[in-house]
Amino acid sequence: MAVQTAESTTESVAGSAAPSVDLGPAAALSCRECGHRVPLGPVFACQECFGPLEIAYDFSDHDTEELRRRIEAGPANIWRYAPLLPVPADVATKPNINPGWTKLVQADNLARELGVTGGLYVKDDSGNPTHSFKDRVVAQALEAARAFGFTTLSCSSTGNLAGAVGAAAARAGLRSCVFIPHDLEQGKVVMAAVYGGELVGIEGNYDDVNRFCSELIGDPAGEGWGFVNVNLRPYYAEGSKTLAYEICEQLGWRLPDQLVVPIASGSQLTKIDKGLRELIELGLVEDRPYKIFGAQAEGCSPVSAAYKAGHDVVRPQKPKTIAKSLAIGNPADGPYVLDIARRTGGAVEDVTDEQIVEAIRLLARTEGIFAETAGGVTVGVTKKLIENGDLDPALTTVVLNTGDGLKTLDAVADTGLTATIRPNLDSFREAGLA
Amino acid sequence: MAVQTAESTTESVAGSAAPSVDLGPAAALSCRECGHRVPLGPVFACQECFGPLEIAYDFSDHDTEELRRRIEAGPANIWRYAPLLPVPADVATKPNINPGWTKLVQADNLARELGVTGGLYVKDDSGNPTHSFKDRVVAQALEAARAFGFTTLSCSSTGNLAGAVGAAAARAGLRSCVFIPHDLEQGKVVMAAVYGGELVGIEGNYDDVNRFCSELIGDPAGEGWGFVNVNLRPYYAEGSKTLAYEICEQLGWRLPDQLVVPIASGSQLTKIDKGLRELIELGLVEDRPYKIFGAQAEGCSPVSAAYKAGHDVVRPQKPKTIAKSLAIGNPADGPYVLDIARRTGGAVEDVTDEQIVEAIRLLARTEGIFAETAGGVTVGVTKKLIENGDLDPALTTVVLNTGDGLKTLDAVADTGLTATIRPNLDSFREAGLA
Ligand SMILES: [Zn+2]
Ligand SMILES: [Zn+2]
Repeated sequence: MAVQTAESTTESVAGSAAPSVDLGPAAALSCRECGHRVPLGPVFACQECFGPLEIAYDFSDHDTEELRRRIEAGPANIWRYAPLLPVPADVATKPNINPGWTKLVQADNLARELGVTGGLYVKDDSGNPTHSFKDRVVAQALEAARAFGFTTLSCSSTGNLAGAVGAAAARAGLRSCVFIPHDLEQGKVVMAAVYGGELVGIEGNYDDVNRFCSELIGDPAGEGWGFVNVNLRPYYAEGSKTLAYEICEQLGWRLPDQLVVPIASGSQLTKIDKGLRELIELGLVEDRPYKIFGAQAEGCSPVSAAYKAGHDVVRPQKPKTIAKSLAIGNPADGPYVLDIARRTGGAVEDVTDEQIVEAIRLLARTEGIFAETAGGVTVGVTKKLIENGDLDPALTTVVLNTGDGLKTLDAVADTGLTATIRPNLDSFREAGLA
Repeated sequence: MAVQTAESTTESVAGSAAPSVDLGPAAALSCRECGHRVPLGPVFACQECFGPLEIAYDFSDHDTEELRRRIEAGPANIWRYAPLLPVPADVATKPNINPGWTKLVQADNLARELGVTGGLYVKDDSGNPTHSFKDRVVAQALEAARAFGFTTLSCSSTGNLAGAVGAAAARAGLRSCVFIPHDLEQGKVVMAAVYGGELVGIEGNYDDVNRFCSELIGDPAGEGWGFVNVNLRPYYAEGSKTLAYEICEQLGWRLPDQLVVPIASGSQLTKIDKGLRELIELGLVEDRPYKIFGAQAEGCSPVSAAYKAGHDVVRPQKPKTIAKSLAIGNPADGPYVLDIARRTGGAVEDVTDEQIVEAIRLLARTEGIFAETAGGVTVGVTKKLIENGDLDPALTTVVLNTGDGLKTLDAVADTGLTATIRPNLDSFREAGLA
């Protein structure tokens, strides 16, 4: 059953669903605004205040060094952190696309170009199974779907999420049904459709698609449907914590000084902060200051605008940018992002589409990493933050690349041949290539 | 200096180059045909018989369990096998795109569809940095280029190799120069050009490109140029051994019973066999029989045709298939492939373009893996081999997927929406989606 507020879930939990729900250390859902707690269930909004629900854990009774050993002996994917995630302990044995444990690339060439002396790293999530960080969050939602007995995995999407849901459901043996605007580009349709699930075009724009999905969740027709980023959102969102865990473990169980994270809904940045704080609380890393910087495209920069204006609230914008995967004009977690950037001493900055393309090329040329436009945003913002003096080049800095350049080829479509020659040495010499 | 036969290399080795060449356990180059040995150098053809040179190792003086521990404690990439590769011991500390240690996916859903009961695995090399197995071989060529003091990394290519060379050179800080036919599709040009190296269009077809490259290697203008699959070929080719190492380690240091490997030049299959035999010789796996099956597209099936006709020689074909990354009409290692397939009790089989597309969809639908056309070839051939009774479904079988579906989207371009609806529940119900 798909229900929207905690009240109805409490009922369902009091009924038949609750006893069978094993999501490891996840103890309850807790309202981020008012702290109201409800049992684990497929709900996302607090019945008291309509604030967002998030997972509350029971990490008591842990031995730090034993936990570290368990993690280090775990699989080379996010399930090494199963003791810190809302998933059953045997999650790694179930059919799953097993995302995560992507490369943390020591970006010395890029560091030289940007003048970073304290160590610069790119966390490259293009290495995930469907080549974006969405595999991390969908993998969490899938476990919740299994726990709640859902039979269809669903989402609305215009890009990366569709492929991640299709692939995860295929491997898990669940039905998938992805809703997209009916006039999406053919390439994106193919990437979503190839996994063989239902791919439904909605006659309307992306807002219409989302409105329809909300309607479906509230209707008996939506029974048994897990919408990864709606009724399964509290579980889904936790997947971003694994980025924080991996970065710290890959740095040798150490917090980076500075992180540059893209902002779409703001959930990823918020959960990375949550993950870092958990590692501190659990004693897995030394408690010392870290700064989180948010990165947006100028053409969709509601959080950056609010940050610069000193506001606590985020005024929605109508997105117009090549960074489609970040184009959320009314980001749900915007206020939390502002709070985290200010609390940690970070900032929020944005770059133009031109700077995004330039940054994609810069990263490819220096480190051999071909990033999606979202990666151009974080690298471009890093450059700008250094120039502004907001980011300290003498500190250890981690920049996220959340997706693959193959998915946004259009952004660099004017990249081409550097020379054309006839097939002989004279022509080669004339072109100055020797 | 770029030289073509062993004779001139012997000179250079006797001169100044040799003492500084440290390529780990690589002891010499040895002719595959006549066994003639020459010192390590940038040569690929035997001066005695023009046979292909390959790396001869000195693995004496090893302790099996110590070696196993070293490997298991190594990095999550091909450099965990540095003691078995022609690379210096400190290779993992150098800037490199660090391919390998890709997922070995236990493909239970696909196994059910194909009737495999003995365990079916997909070795998914789409997880490499530029999303094809070419990263493995280019990484070896890069180390050889560094060892020989080359300053430009080069290749001719119409696809995956161009990106792999561009990315590897960028990260290593070498110049790259990739030669392609001048009229290549824009998407492929972008994927190769984004890394910022020289990308030179040759007015002519792929044969013209190759002829020009051979000319350049023999000319003073080519001094300092390492062509990964020409004058660095013996080193380059060894990269495919890492597929064999990883498969066995991921199976718990056990040989699979059956492997299905795509055939382009045939080098990959040949080196996988070499890798398996090395593991046996080194005592890292138990010596027991394994069968290697070769997979081709019907539209470029010279090895399959020779196998079926009982020939030892391979008659060249003019390729016409959607599996472009396998479209080598005159495969250099064809005769070795025939020998290996026959010696191990395997076979060589081919599938039509239609079957390739069907197999891409089958793999995506069952396992959430979106394969390049080459992956469609191996999965399709596996299905056919089972139907023919050539492949035993009761034995443990590993199928290679060597590239990513995002690179050959055209193959499944007719994949699309399963339904189009208006944004309301009535329309949803009418479409039969509830
Ligand atoms: Zn509340
Ligand atoms: Zn010879």
